[in-house]
Amino acid sequence: MPVPAPNLYPDFNTVRLSHVAYRVTDLARSRAFYVDTLGLQVTGETADTLYLRAMEERGHHCVALHQAPEAGVEALGFKVWHEDDLDRAHGWFSARGRPVDWVDRPHQGRTLRTSDLFGVPLEFYARMDRLPPIHQQYKLYHGVKPLRIDHFNTFSPDVDASVAFWTDMGFRTTEYTEDEDTGQLWAAWMHRKGGVHDMAFTNGLGPRLHHTAFWVPTPLNIIDLLDLMATTGWVANIERGPGRHGISNAFFLYIRDPDGHRIEIYCSDYQTCDPDLEPIKWDLKDPQRQTLWGAPAPRSWFEEGSHFIGLTPAESRLKASPIIAP
Amino acid sequence: MPVPAPNLYPDFNTVRLSHVAYRVTDLARSRAFYVDTLGLQVTGETADTLYLRAMEERGHHCVALHQAPEAGVEALGFKVWHEDDLDRAHGWFSARGRPVDWVDRPHQGRTLRTSDLFGVPLEFYARMDRLPPIHQQYKLYHGVKPLRIDHFNTFSPDVDASVAFWTDMGFRTTEYTEDEDTGQLWAAWMHRKGGVHDMAFTNGLGPRLHHTAFWVPTPLNIIDLLDLMATTGWVANIERGPGRHGISNAFFLYIRDPDGHRIEIYCSDYQTCDPDLEPIKWDLKDPQRQTLWGAPAPRSWFEEGSHFIGLTPAESRLKASPIIAP
Amino acid sequence: MPVPAPNLYPDFNTVRLSHVAYRVTDLARSRAFYVDTLGLQVTGETADTLYLRAMEERGHHCVALHQAPEAGVEALGFKVWHEDDLDRAHGWFSARGRPVDWVDRPHQGRTLRTSDLFGVPLEFYARMDRLPPIHQQYKLYHGVKPLRIDHFNTFSPDVDASVAFWTDMGFRTTEYTEDEDTGQLWAAWMHRKGGVHDMAFTNGLGPRLHHTAFWVPTPLNIIDLLDLMATTGWVANIERGPGRHGISNAFFLYIRDPDGHRIEIYCSDYQTCDPDLEPIKWDLKDPQRQTLWGAPAPRSWFEEGSHFIGLTPAESRLKASPIIAP
Amino acid sequence: MPVPAPNLYPDFNTVRLSHVAYRVTDLARSRAFYVDTLGLQVTGETADTLYLRAMEERGHHCVALHQAPEAGVEALGFKVWHEDDLDRAHGWFSARGRPVDWVDRPHQGRTLRTSDLFGVPLEFYARMDRLPPIHQQYKLYHGVKPLRIDHFNTFSPDVDASVAFWTDMGFRTTEYTEDEDTGQLWAAWMHRKGGVHDMAFTNGLGPRLHHTAFWVPTPLNIIDLLDLMATTGWVANIERGPGRHGISNAFFLYIRDPDGHRIEIYCSDYQTCDPDLEPIKWDLKDPQRQTLWGAPAPRSWFEEGSHFIGLTPAESRLKASPIIAP
Repeated sequence: MPVPAPNLYPDFNTVRLSHVAYRVTDLARSRAFYVDTLGLQVTGETADTLYLRAMEERGHHCVALHQAPEAGVEALGFKVWHEDDLDRAHGWFSARGRPVDWVDRPHQGRTLRTSDLFGVPLEFYARMDRLPPIHQQYKLYHGVKPLRIDHFNTFSPDVDASVAFWTDMGFRTTEYTEDEDTGQLWAAWMHRKGGVHDMAFTNGLGPRLHHTAFWVPTPLNIIDLLDLMATTGWVANIERGPGRHGISNAFFLYIRDPDGHRIEIYCSDYQTCDPDLEPIKWDLKDPQRQTLWGAPAPRSWFEEGSHFIGLTPAESRLKASPIIAP
Repeated sequence: MPVPAPNLYPDFNTVRLSHVAYRVTDLARSRAFYVDTLGLQVTGETADTLYLRAMEERGHHCVALHQAPEAGVEALGFKVWHEDDLDRAHGWFSARGRPVDWVDRPHQGRTLRTSDLFGVPLEFYARMDRLPPIHQQYKLYHGVKPLRIDHFNTFSPDVDASVAFWTDMGFRTTEYTEDEDTGQLWAAWMHRKGGVHDMAFTNGLGPRLHHTAFWVPTPLNIIDLLDLMATTGWVANIERGPGRHGISNAFFLYIRDPDGHRIEIYCSDYQTCDPDLEPIKWDLKDPQRQTLWGAPAPRSWFEEGSHFIGLTPAESRLKASPIIAP
Repeated sequence: MPVPAPNLYPDFNTVRLSHVAYRVTDLARSRAFYVDTLGLQVTGETADTLYLRAMEERGHHCVALHQAPEAGVEALGFKVWHEDDLDRAHGWFSARGRPVDWVDRPHQGRTLRTSDLFGVPLEFYARMDRLPPIHQQYKLYHGVKPLRIDHFNTFSPDVDASVAFWTDMGFRTTEYTEDEDTGQLWAAWMHRKGGVHDMAFTNGLGPRLHHTAFWVPTPLNIIDLLDLMATTGWVANIERGPGRHGISNAFFLYIRDPDGHRIEIYCSDYQTCDPDLEPIKWDLKDPQRQTLWGAPAPRSWFEEGSHFIGLTPAESRLKASPIIAP
Repeated sequence: MPVPAPNLYPDFNTVRLSHVAYRVTDLARSRAFYVDTLGLQVTGETADTLYLRAMEERGHHCVALHQAPEAGVEALGFKVWHEDDLDRAHGWFSARGRPVDWVDRPHQGRTLRTSDLFGVPLEFYARMDRLPPIHQQYKLYHGVKPLRIDHFNTFSPDVDASVAFWTDMGFRTTEYTEDEDTGQLWAAWMHRKGGVHDMAFTNGLGPRLHHTAFWVPTPLNIIDLLDLMATTGWVANIERGPGRHGISNAFFLYIRDPDGHRIEIYCSDYQTCDPDLEPIKWDLKDPQRQTLWGAPAPRSWFEEGSHFIGLTPAESRLKASPIIAP
């Protein structure tokens, strides 16, 4: 079954993914990773929290790191168009039986906390503190020179169900993997902001967060990061890449933060803002969908992910294909 | 006076700029420029017209070249979200006293021809023929490896008036140059699709088309094009660059086609989809707004532009600042 | 035991590696690989031979492909400084009991055929036909844009012995891997022309040719080649990479031609012309010497190589370390 | 008249250019330029001198900066193959009536100070202190990521005479500009180490040092430096570029240090180690020899240079061609 037709007039207008709130067990070590190595900029700091932004962002943060006894993911943040969209979102999630709460978050206006059909914790806001531009302060650029947060990728126990839910929310599918034998979705990439994705779903024990991705200008930035990590004690945190995904056509690198949270560094995807953009279908049996150049991913990449706080992931209904086992 | 506040709920939803229709005097020569040198792909061909697309586009064309006795610009094309938006656009332009016509255009659905306040010819459509993706057919990439049409830039005789009109249409300003002495706008960059601009206005004898821009992945593609043009008889068609604009932060090159139509090759701008993105103001006296690295533009770049068919440009009410004279 | 001191006044002056003569079983298919895909330029063609050069070379060829019933390597070619050096080389190899012959080779002057201590077939010449420069004919650049042949890498059954022999010939060692337990050399990189190597030796069943390398300007050219090969039917010929070697610091890609001859695409090594350049020692137990970024090489890369015509390789006296098994 | 035939067996063996000794008037400001902005590494520091090396160099320094009341150039340094070459050089320069002195220089062994036919101060040594490699300490890379000193370029009052003298010294010409009307040399590029040049001569008021060049890996490093300089107060020190030279084919940028000493950042030239490499002739009337892409150089680039201490430059015997005036 193909992916559902896009909902061109959703009940509320989500602009883009905005930020991730991670729990980390050693804030100093995480700072060494995200700030000193990746090159994110510190925009706020409290006793137990660090706020970070990438070089072209003007919202206050794209990552919040919270010191905690155990690692995990507190929420995936999304920005909506207008305060009215928050109210409409409140109604939309309520109508689907999802929990809805207005919560206080530093540096944000009114914030709606809710979750998707499988419990992925979501926080929506319309306004976050705005900071002055730094994208032309070139002396600040270092590490991988991250420009902006690009997307989330999550494990879902039922990708067809996840895609149906998020399509209703107004997310449009750009590419997907189908199991030709069963007609079921194996994975899907969905967007709001005009790139290949703001949010992706892959079949697996879930929900868990597979990775958060940052966009960089060119593959050479990724090579620079590899050289830096390889010679500053982070070589074991390099998990996969560099390579080109067949899906999304992006040049990628996957690394792991000190708590194992997976970060993708990503460039070279394409513009998707046309409402009639046809999703690209990939066959689960085509290994080039994963890596255009043929190299397999390591087992950890298929199996490991970050837990959402308070959520117990469920087994997928689909069996792991022998094709995608590493 | 600052730029007007964005109209977050415009009467009709323009997705993005879509294509330009040029008149050219020697179609074979233009083909040598756009196809053999720039690397655009031919998607259609008749006795007197050539249709072209860039590598990641799936709409039928981003450039139409029409053989004609004299060079000029027939129309700037824009894609709207839905057929209903065409009807709303028809009403919107009619209400402002602009001419409105439903016209037939090959490869497009229903098409509204109208013009902006100064007569810039605009054509809106919701659906254009869609073509299969070619962005992963790497053997087709050559020349500058153009990925997509990015924006138009036009001379306007009154930038304040142009910006007011296009703001009503839903275009949002990302950067602008103000004459500090008079408070008048000298130039403005306005977008719909989430980059720095789909459409820009610069003070000058207008309306005329200053340039059409194409987006490429990295500055190295621009260097490759320079090397190619310099050694295949096109060196005189290199007008300005390479360089970095202060405004937009883009890495740029300006070249001229065989009829003098100016083409910008462009990369490295930034994402602008937030509705609360604050426009960046530049002072007319700051030379780095033009070229961050300090090199001046040649006189031709300030003075020359393509004429819109049937339209006589008017002098600007603002005097040329000695600062921006080359 | 460290590598021997360089011989700063060798009996004859070798300028650089020059070319490889391969036997291939399907010349048309090899042409599709070397010319249409890699981007080497055809400089001569007979019924059963194809001569190729890279973009900045002015010697007639760096690769000769000979149609033959079985694949193999006929000779590794080297250029000497002057005709007199050929005579001195004749004496030098004779004195060491190596076979010496003056042979006729198309496009070359007087040519000395001989072999190294283990029988690696070597051909020395002082003058080869010279061709006009094409390095600024940018329209000819395609594929990986190969600029020049860079080096050979061979399996040797006794690297200490190979290094001693080639050091006497005037080759200077830039980097080497030592088995700390035995003090024996595992591998060595030796040069004449001022890069990391013209010739390298790795412990293994030998002599066999491990690979021939070509130098390209930037890692992006390698990424372009990967994209091209992955989408034109050559994905199975991608063997290893892209990555950064610890040894040589080069950015690399290994691919296999239609007969399995291994080709390295290579950039970013360093200048080594100082006679007092200290060789860099790597420990066999350090996995970053192979891949700075940590990814292992596939088994084929350690085990497979091209046979020299008429030569039966011998087992190495050293056992394969578990560390370097894939 | 063509350039003289190369001297393949010179009296002494010069390996490469090695370093420049500049006088500067504000050492702290020069440090901000060379260290904080360009990214050279400090290897030694006294009250009035700063020693610097580039990232892949192991000799102690490629630049010595001496605090002085007036700016100037003390010497151009060259490395020879062996101590014996120093003695032979002593004889060679003496025989030509040039002053010869054995001088003490920190961090160097025995050093011969002499000068070329027009008085350019030259210092030759065989051994300089060697430092451990840092080319894989990627955390140290910043600024333009300079890899090594590449060449000197000087104004000469008689290029034919300079080329004759340096050819006798063993320098080989790779490219040259000839005035077709008079048959006289306008400029010449000469090398020892296998690149396009270690030393170049351009007709003009001389001898003066036109520039010292550093080699970087890719054009993107040059773009990074431009962005950095443009946003850290150095925009006025950007003189020319980026661009591609016709001659040498190099991608270039010219900047000025705080005292006006001109520095070229340079990449993408080609290998020249063949003794039979044919020099490439350019016509003085061909503007693409200067800038392949056609943009003219500013007047300062043609006229300004650094003075050698104690040396009064002489007018050239050739008139400035109208062609090369900016």
